[in-house]
Amino acid sequence: MKQQQLIFNERPNGLPNASTFAMKEVEVGSPKQDQLLLKTLYISVDPYMRGRMADGPSYIAPFQIGEPLNGGVVGQVITSESDQFQQGDIVTGMLDFQEYHIVNADQVRKVNTFGLRPSVALGPLGMPGLTAYFGMMHIGEPKQGETVVISGAAGAVGQIAGQLAKKAGARVIGIVGSEEKAAYITETLGYDLAIQYKLGDVHEQLKQACPNGIDVYFENVGGEIGDAVWPLLNAFARIPVCGAISSYNLKEGERDIGVRVQTYLIKARAKMQGFLVGDYTEHFKEAYEELGKAIASGELKYQETIREGFESIPDAFIGLFTGENIGKQLVKVAEQE
Amino acid sequence: MKQQQLIFNERPNGLPNASTFAMKEVEVGSPKQDQLLLKTLYISVDPYMRGRMADGPSYIAPFQIGEPLNGGVVGQVITSESDQFQQGDIVTGMLDFQEYHIVNADQVRKVNTFGLRPSVALGPLGMPGLTAYFGMMHIGEPKQGETVVISGAAGAVGQIAGQLAKKAGARVIGIVGSEEKAAYITETLGYDLAIQYKLGDVHEQLKQACPNGIDVYFENVGGEIGDAVWPLLNAFARIPVCGAISSYNLKEGERDIGVRVQTYLIKARAKMQGFLVGDYTEHFKEAYEELGKAIASGELKYQETIREGFESIPDAFIGLFTGENIGKQLVKVAEQE
Repeated sequence: MKQQQLIFNERPNGLPNASTFAMKEVEVGSPKQDQLLLKTLYISVDPYMRGRMADGPSYIAPFQIGEPLNGGVVGQVITSESDQFQQGDIVTGMLDFQEYHIVNADQVRKVNTFGLRPSVALGPLGMPGLTAYFGMMHIGEPKQGETVVISGAAGAVGQIAGQLAKKAGARVIGIVGSEEKAAYITETLGYDLAIQYKLGDVHEQLKQACPNGIDVYFENVGGEIGDAVWPLLNAFARIPVCGAISSYNLKEGERDIGVRVQTYLIKARAKMQGFLVGDYTEHFKEAYEELGKAIASGELKYQETIREGFESIPDAFIGLFTGENIGKQLVKVAEQE
Repeated sequence: MKQQQLIFNERPNGLPNASTFAMKEVEVGSPKQDQLLLKTLYISVDPYMRGRMADGPSYIAPFQIGEPLNGGVVGQVITSESDQFQQGDIVTGMLDFQEYHIVNADQVRKVNTFGLRPSVALGPLGMPGLTAYFGMMHIGEPKQGETVVISGAAGAVGQIAGQLAKKAGARVIGIVGSEEKAAYITETLGYDLAIQYKLGDVHEQLKQACPNGIDVYFENVGGEIGDAVWPLLNAFARIPVCGAISSYNLKEGERDIGVRVQTYLIKARAKMQGFLVGDYTEHFKEAYEELGKAIASGELKYQETIREGFESIPDAFIGLFTGENIGKQLVKVAEQE
């Protein structure tokens, strides 16, 4: 049997485009002892993948030209040659982007979806949810009555980070790029206020919105948004640095130029800390339990933006950088059986 | 009796100059119950004072036009009306810049100079020494075999910070502005290597000097030096942010523009933290003991740059920003009796 595979065709210089990707027809194959045949249900496209498209040293190996792209996948077991899995099981793992997979049993884990759509394992109960959890709870540490500002507030990570800060008793302000997102985070997620960065000077809007200054800034976007935050930091502010999507598509030789942060960190005795979800593996159990319970009970809300069809992965990925998605951006590849 | 007092005459726009300051003749007065009459021996000029010359909100109140400047002073008790002090005692405190002082007994503390010149209480056993200690030991936390880079490495703080990192077993590289300073930190202080930022591309020099990357960057100067460091940060690097002297003399409306740090912090999962010595008061005793022992035994070395005469305070202060001083910059006002 043949299937489609999505190939990394060309390193982008700036924003990725159609020629970054190529489709390839490959054989599905069949599972050997301790292996599984999976059908892809959902594929996750994430901003961090842009980093893997560059050829520099980083925390994760770069994609290789001519090789398949790779990322978060939810699949269903079609054939199991492992006693750890049964046909029909829903599993997730970091897999190549293709319609079917032959994997070793230890390459994936079973998903507890809490009765929800299995795509939840790629969003609030997956990498983005855990990222929000560790950044907010282990670095941001919001306290009752503090002011928390979140950029990319309606995104896959931001939507969870903001609700966790609300749960901790903070006043939470989200920065977003559209009226629709502003309405979503205030009306559905319970953010206290939304700031639309396209509607005017972000620093002035933040100053109005945060009369008591900013205690936690959850950094998802970088660039001028961060610049606007620094002068408003309170004493002992915490800045979990999760992403800087505004700078991911710089062209070769361009650097991310803006306001240097040192004097602001001194004035506020603030802590700014980059982090990756993979550094917190020993706390995954605690995080899954807390997020799972809150999602199952409906206390923690989330939204997904889903495109249909394996061939729409490139567009879904490129759309991340123009702010198309609310919540987790996914591609639905096949129906669950 | 009359004495000289140094007045804050005019807010500088950019680098301070002669008209920033004015001399005033004022009455000395005499001490009442629980007060002391002090004679100023040494006055400390420090880069952070530039921040107090601006009129914005900060961690410390701005200087007021027409009022005396204020900072670290070491003095000797001439007359004591307090049973806690005796004539001849050497004391230190944050005092107005003048030749004599009438102070309440609780405004100053007795100095244990460990047999050294009493100016030590304004340098390695004062604010700069404590700053180096807390920044390096509480935030930097250098470990055996790690690579530590210190900017402003021959300064009052840098000279202590580097030796503490050596003591912890790290390989220590200092960035300095002259050949004389390079020789001082390597030959006298035991730094492994000096980089002279005026001799060429700092990033390239650092890359050569740090083949294993940078684990701790002690930030004293900011600006292009910091920019040159970010791409070399190792996983879980720590960056105590002590100062950013390169940006202290920006003119009105200018901002400190350079490389944004967010993507580097994420890639390295690095922590960057501003701090002030005043946030560590509960640990002062530990720090004084450790620094005092090491200085008394000669294990911890230090140098001072001393100008003579009360009238030289403005020049001594301005010289901080042109990199004149090696180690602590002081003004000697009178001989100890």
